[in-house]
Amino acid sequence: MSTLAIGPDEAVAAAAAAAPDWAATAPVDRARALEAVAEALEAERAELVALADSETRLGTARLNGELSRTTFQLRLFAEQARAGEFLDVRIDRADPQWPTGPRPDLRRYRTAIGPVLVFAASNFPFAFSVAGGDTASAWAAGCPVVVKVHPGHPELSRRTAEIILRALSQAGVPDGVFGLIEGQQAGVDALRHPALRAAAFTGSERGGLALARIAADRPEPIPFYGELGSVNPVVVTPAAADARGAEIAQGYIGSLTLGAGQICTNPGLLFVPADDGLMDEIVRLLREVPTAPMLGEWISEAYVAGAGRLAGHPGTRTLVWPDDETSASPRLLTMDLTTFAADLQNTAQECFGPLGLVITYERLRDLAPVVAALPGQLTASLHAHPDEADETGALTALTTALADRSGRVLWNEWPTGVSVTHAMQHGGPFPATTTPTTTSVGTAAIERFQRPVTYQSWPPALLPPALRDDNPWQIPQRTRP
Amino acid sequence: MSTLAIGPDEAVAAAAAAAPDWAATAPVDRARALEAVAEALEAERAELVALADSETRLGTARLNGELSRTTFQLRLFAEQARAGEFLDVRIDRADPQWPTGPRPDLRRYRTAIGPVLVFAASNFPFAFSVAGGDTASAWAAGCPVVVKVHPGHPELSRRTAEIILRALSQAGVPDGVFGLIEGQQAGVDALRHPALRAAAFTGSERGGLALARIAADRPEPIPFYGELGSVNPVVVTPAAADARGAEIAQGYIGSLTLGAGQICTNPGLLFVPADDGLMDEIVRLLREVPTAPMLGEWISEAYVAGAGRLAGHPGTRTLVWPDDETSASPRLLTMDLTTFAADLQNTAQECFGPLGLVITYERLRDLAPVVAALPGQLTASLHAHPDEADETGALTALTTALADRSGRVLWNEWPTGVSVTHAMQHGGPFPATTTPTTTSVGTAAIERFQRPVTYQSWPPALLPPALRDDNPWQIPQRTRP
Repeated sequence: MSTLAIGPDEAVAAAAAAAPDWAATAPVDRARALEAVAEALEAERAELVALADSETRLGTARLNGELSRTTFQLRLFAEQARAGEFLDVRIDRADPQWPTGPRPDLRRYRTAIGPVLVFAASNFPFAFSVAGGDTASAWAAGCPVVVKVHPGHPELSRRTAEIILRALSQAGVPDGVFGLIEGQQAGVDALRHPALRAAAFTGSERGGLALARIAADRPEPIPFYGELGSVNPVVVTPAAADARGAEIAQGYIGSLTLGAGQICTNPGLLFVPADDGLMDEIVRLLREVPTAPMLGEWISEAYVAGAGRLAGHPGTRTLVWPDDETSASPRLLTMDLTTFAADLQNTAQECFGPLGLVITYERLRDLAPVVAALPGQLTASLHAHPDEADETGALTALTTALADRSGRVLWNEWPTGVSVTHAMQHGGPFPATTTPTTTSVGTAAIERFQRPVTYQSWPPALLPPALRDDNPWQIPQRTRP
Repeated sequence: MSTLAIGPDEAVAAAAAAAPDWAATAPVDRARALEAVAEALEAERAELVALADSETRLGTARLNGELSRTTFQLRLFAEQARAGEFLDVRIDRADPQWPTGPRPDLRRYRTAIGPVLVFAASNFPFAFSVAGGDTASAWAAGCPVVVKVHPGHPELSRRTAEIILRALSQAGVPDGVFGLIEGQQAGVDALRHPALRAAAFTGSERGGLALARIAADRPEPIPFYGELGSVNPVVVTPAAADARGAEIAQGYIGSLTLGAGQICTNPGLLFVPADDGLMDEIVRLLREVPTAPMLGEWISEAYVAGAGRLAGHPGTRTLVWPDDETSASPRLLTMDLTTFAADLQNTAQECFGPLGLVITYERLRDLAPVVAALPGQLTASLHAHPDEADETGALTALTTALADRSGRVLWNEWPTGVSVTHAMQHGGPFPATTTPTTTSVGTAAIERFQRPVTYQSWPPALLPPALRDDNPWQIPQRTRP
């Protein structure tokens, strides 16, 4: 078994050495390797979940579910690799009659971009960490991966890495396809390594922006995919509040406090009609929610400070607030729409944890312009009455504004709980992500780690397998005569 | 007819106002608008070509060809819009049995990203300018476009804009889908406008990097697609030089001096076997090439200065050099592989114009590591003998290295002349472009101006047409049960 936690230069150099072989490995063999890792992780489930719980305090129910999601992701990306569509093979045969002049034989596909650095997240020790979605999608694309451990769960990360290294080795995967590094400086050094070709990050806006700047300031800048922050606005229409206020209140509290609020799709902003009973019901329910432990001191301190800042904002009223100011218990604040809209830079900022801000509005049609001015979001939700007629056009305007500022819009549902599937979009305009044209969840996530290359009049013997007429990988090829 | 050359705030605000309508316009109607613009430009061909020639001195033959390419591009993107595949519609129906938990109804497509700013290029007054590929692909995606005029051909730009505005207006396209702005500060102001959503640029590394930084430093950073610089290496194997040296010399000279060397795929680096007759033939042919006028004084001065810098590099020998140091005539320099490899930052830098650097090598197998260390390129070419056996593996290693550092590799062909087609890739690692995952030529260029959005459990009446089950746009939908 290889050594764990090697130095950043060693890790990226090993990844670079392995890159051509791994990119040239048939997708079906890459798929087998991903499945071997999934199987190996499942085999150590009890140990891994216990380790994760001891380091993150997220609870074994949630962590068991998260590990299942993680192995499912590995298998889903394996299936994608096998299907081969992600290679987007386009073959335009030579055409002497092409309108802009004789067209040579052109063959384009998306090749593996090269060594990828993944910064693991604190709040998903499995699904966005060592063997998480970024790693799985980069592997499926044919890229070696170096993971920078999150300091919130180092033992789990090392143990996961051990299991990965053994599984890959048994599957005959070249050394260097996976590497683990630890420490902030190691992460920065790896990001600056000339052989690195892309990086992915899930975490805070501050940390992500600092790393994005480093990626951009390299002699050769590289793509940096950062998933940073989101307050995930939820709008409740008057008709919805009337028809099913109790259900909405319950759904909101469940989503707001899931995982102690430490979820990137946590619904931080709730827009409700003024003078409605909905808020009372929310307050009543939230007071019953017990305080859940947060991932660590550094997170709960930031949460308490962020909530305090917002509570001190002029025009804010506290609805639920602990007697013990240092407690990480859920908090609820409220302000009216005018107050909220006047200072979005402070009122619409993410505060990681179970903090809810309820914004009261007078008329539904006043919301669209405020939503349109929000910073970019991962999700935006609308709770309306199923049969609500859109007489004023307010719902249409809201739909446009919500979709313009986010990557996923939800109707009468809550944003936490991200399905891993083909049609999922987990991304959005800045600051939700640094690259709004991409997703970090779902099968399209693989595209982040590919780069198109065209071979012009290249001889079959030297063509990559994906582009050959004899199609040894047996993948879809889009051929035009 | 709308006023030309409006202010940057006015232009982006008008684009933002038009954005929802244009994005919601059926692709078939967008296609008709693009075709109307193509037709209108063709109708004024004689006038446009004459105007272009007076401002750029590129000659009517080349300019007629470039205008044909431009109208072809508009029609090709119209065809893409009609086909609807670019929308990448994915419909995952609700699935209570989905392995990671009940899956809601999820519908994802690539929507128009919003208002796009296009910085026109100097060297392609039609194809990479006002009605060029960036504009056509952004329109096809459903984005309004603001074009910042290149000062090298202002009259042509204004006249083109007039024709566009009239054609769009006659086609019933909303005001604001096209706008023209002039002046460097106007370009910067438009790039900083909060309603702008993406920008595309073709030009110098210095200019492109300055604009990329502005795009990244906005309160909300946006995608910036810059095509910057490339020296487009060409490797000639000993067997190829032996078998068809004269043909290679001729092809090289033609490609090097095409358009006075003012082409982004100009072959600036030629690797040839040492002690071969090829170089003598190249020198003989290049001396016969008459001096062509460059686009302007600012370009020829930069060319003369850049060539002078490289000529002064230790270890460089001049092969073709004008008596008049200020002439924009073709120049040829040579150095050996060791000298070249030792200072890539200076020896492998683009000098826009007809400057050739011939690098002599002793053994073919020495080339791959040097190619692997080159900065990112738009193209990289290999001239080999058609039946050349790859006994040493040198060709395979070169293929890997060339493809790793560029967006398009060519076998026994020359990089100038970029076919506009489905399998074209015009992009590459930095500094060839700022975004190696994209192309600015060919049908995939449209992807730059799209952003994925997922609608979760959204009611049919409020869904975008592309995502509805009744499929009013009649486009491909990938539905999974």
